[in-house]
Amino acid sequence: MKIIDGGVCSVEGVLASGSRNGKYGVGIIFNENSTAAAVFTSNKVVAAPIIFSKKSIENGSISAIVTNSGNANCFTGEKGLQDSFLMAKMVSEYLKIDSDEVVVGSTGVIGREMPINIIISLIENALKTLENSSDGSKRAAEAIMTTDTYSKEFAVKTTLKNGNIVKIGGITKGSGMIAPNMGTMLAYITTDVDASPEELQKSLKEAVDQSFNMLVVDGDESTNDMVVIMANGRSGKIDENFQEALNFLCRELAKMMAKDGEGATKLIEVEIKNAQSAKDAQLAAKAVVKSPLVKTAIFGGDPNWGRIVAAVGYSGANINEKIISVSLKALDEDHPSKTEVKIVDKGSVKAYENTKELSDAESIMKNKDIKITVDIGLGSSTATAYGCDLSYDYVKINAEYTT
Amino acid sequence: MKIIDGGVCSVEGVLASGSRNGKYGVGIIFNENSTAAAVFTSNKVVAAPIIFSKKSIENGSISAIVTNSGNANCFTGEKGLQDSFLMAKMVSEYLKIDSDEVVVGSTGVIGREMPINIIISLIENALKTLENSSDGSKRAAEAIMTTDTYSKEFAVKTTLKNGNIVKIGGITKGSGMIAPNMGTMLAYITTDVDASPEELQKSLKEAVDQSFNMLVVDGDESTNDMVVIMANGRSGKIDENFQEALNFLCRELAKMMAKDGEGATKLIEVEIKNAQSAKDAQLAAKAVVKSPLVKTAIFGGDPNWGRIVAAVGYSGANINEKIISVSLKALDEDHPSKTEVKIVDKGSVKAYENTKELSDAESIMKNKDIKITVDIGLGSSTATAYGCDLSYDYVKINAEYTT
Repeated sequence: MKIIDGGVCSVEGVLASGSRNGKYGVGIIFNENSTAAAVFTSNKVVAAPIIFSKKSIENGSISAIVTNSGNANCFTGEKGLQDSFLMAKMVSEYLKIDSDEVVVGSTGVIGREMPINIIISLIENALKTLENSSDGSKRAAEAIMTTDTYSKEFAVKTTLKNGNIVKIGGITKGSGMIAPNMGTMLAYITTDVDASPEELQKSLKEAVDQSFNMLVVDGDESTNDMVVIMANGRSGKIDENFQEALNFLCRELAKMMAKDGEGATKLIEVEIKNAQSAKDAQLAAKAVVKSPLVKTAIFGGDPNWGRIVAAVGYSGANINEKIISVSLKALDEDHPSKTEVKIVDKGSVKAYENTKELSDAESIMKNKDIKITVDIGLGSSTATAYGCDLSYDYVKINAEYTT
Repeated sequence: MKIIDGGVCSVEGVLASGSRNGKYGVGIIFNENSTAAAVFTSNKVVAAPIIFSKKSIENGSISAIVTNSGNANCFTGEKGLQDSFLMAKMVSEYLKIDSDEVVVGSTGVIGREMPINIIISLIENALKTLENSSDGSKRAAEAIMTTDTYSKEFAVKTTLKNGNIVKIGGITKGSGMIAPNMGTMLAYITTDVDASPEELQKSLKEAVDQSFNMLVVDGDESTNDMVVIMANGRSGKIDENFQEALNFLCRELAKMMAKDGEGATKLIEVEIKNAQSAKDAQLAAKAVVKSPLVKTAIFGGDPNWGRIVAAVGYSGANINEKIISVSLKALDEDHPSKTEVKIVDKGSVKAYENTKELSDAESIMKNKDIKITVDIGLGSSTATAYGCDLSYDYVKINAEYTT
């Protein structure tokens, strides 16, 4: 497996582009006659584009994705559904495909009518500039940003068991409202693997469960999330090597989102080891990464393991505080020491005041990429969750969002 | 029912006092030979004083509560249990009661050894100054504060059905780590009602379920919470009038905690009306009051009803977005207009840009005490949750807590 450039356009035949006008943007991806699979928000309030796109995905085959930023087109009634349809129709007419081959995404403020004239002219611009190039992918990624501070693209290639090279490219946007079941996050993945809709859905679900679904920025779940994969079948048949590459790509995209969480200054990875069940491991990992007290402690550079243990304690996972261990590690590439420091060892605190463990832990906490490992010691299940710290800027961004 | 002065000492025969030394404090309440009931944290990591106090409560009768602030005595092993026992022993010897008639509480940093010598001298000071007076209750309330910015006391009297006057007094401390199942919150209630341990437990649970358990500051649950009630039986038999007064007292104490949540600038009350079940109403109320996006919007004075509806949508409660209504109201006593403004009416948004509803809603949001009402319209169940906004100061307080 190798990391490559080009985002969604790393895959041959994929065209992409985007256009922005102030806080509004439109990104388009074209991957003709693709097998499609998707994971949608579980919020019971569902935005118009999600209602529209579920139908397109049900057909098992799509050719294009059009996404606007700046307005979520949620809680917008019949007019909202018409706007989603209009977006799909414009794209389908230009690309000479059916409108039910189009997936529509929207992200931004909830409950405001779509500024449809602005969106229409952005769609026109984006359609005219579609191309199979790194620039095209980047324009699409930039066009769908809301409070993201940078665009997010990733691509890999790997060799299938039959010897074929397969490519997978993705773009995403975060970055608030990201929760265990996904927030206002959109992730679009292109590939040239050959798969049936069912195979692709199963594969996507496995990847999403260990990446986007283990990502927490603020615990809110959006009405607009989706992850969509389009596979044009030009390479070989889907297999384990593809799955490994897709899992990796989704984890990397999720980490990018965590790192760019609203106001984030640090990336937090929480690995739970030796839990009694996979569910316990996931519950505990998410509870730690979601805890406002852990998040603020990490923002302050404070190795407050007590808050970590307390979060594991209320997570619902089965634990025995007498055998639990907690370690910290810096994952920053430029950090001189990659040593893991055990601050709680089988229920016994090592990082008391004036210990080497405490000063080592404090030094680790000064880094930008912090890994917390909790060994529960009751079984053999593992899970990793991704998140970010809680800073003054998170408050600033969200207190002033709609004004 | 009437609000009275005196906190826990409003009840005849109750002695209280407290003593502080920098960040450490000790509060003591003496209510000899009381029937006891309590609700404890559900965190699986349990602090030493909770382990100790559960045994005292199991006897059904206690005489005193001793509480230190500044150190949670949690994750402190065998030494922690010894320290809790020592605190109880000092109090029992001075007051000539058994040590298992004492409840021990601790609040503060987790995982640090108790500064037991400081605590011992604070216990001595508090014991020497015990008295049945407003001052005594206030000293106890002040001594158990951690990040609280003011002490919290409340007392009421009411007439039982048999004509007896009964009094109920309480002190509490918050103010972070307050969650649906209670955070580092301690609430101590005295009364002269006459009740069996079972009657008192049932009565306390009813009151806690609609007050402290509906209170969310940051969603973290502490290892040290408890609510304890001591009833000395000098007044008449427990009845519905007592229950009504206890419910009211607990709600008022919970609101004081919400208002003094870490960094809070505003009190938020969320009432869910006409939910399909009580559980749905509770889930939806807690989801809204817990949402970081709602909390930051309220901090910023932004009537972002979209975030309110989104939180109801992911709460797990059954809803139909086409019939949901959302209203805002200012509860500030000095606010000129107490009018409720409907910003979403049966699924249709009223507070669009340039509407009177939006400017009214913006004016409401400038107040300190905001009530959000969501009418789900699917049934007849109601629940109210209490919380606060999320401000820069929450981040500041928690980023720098242990340093």
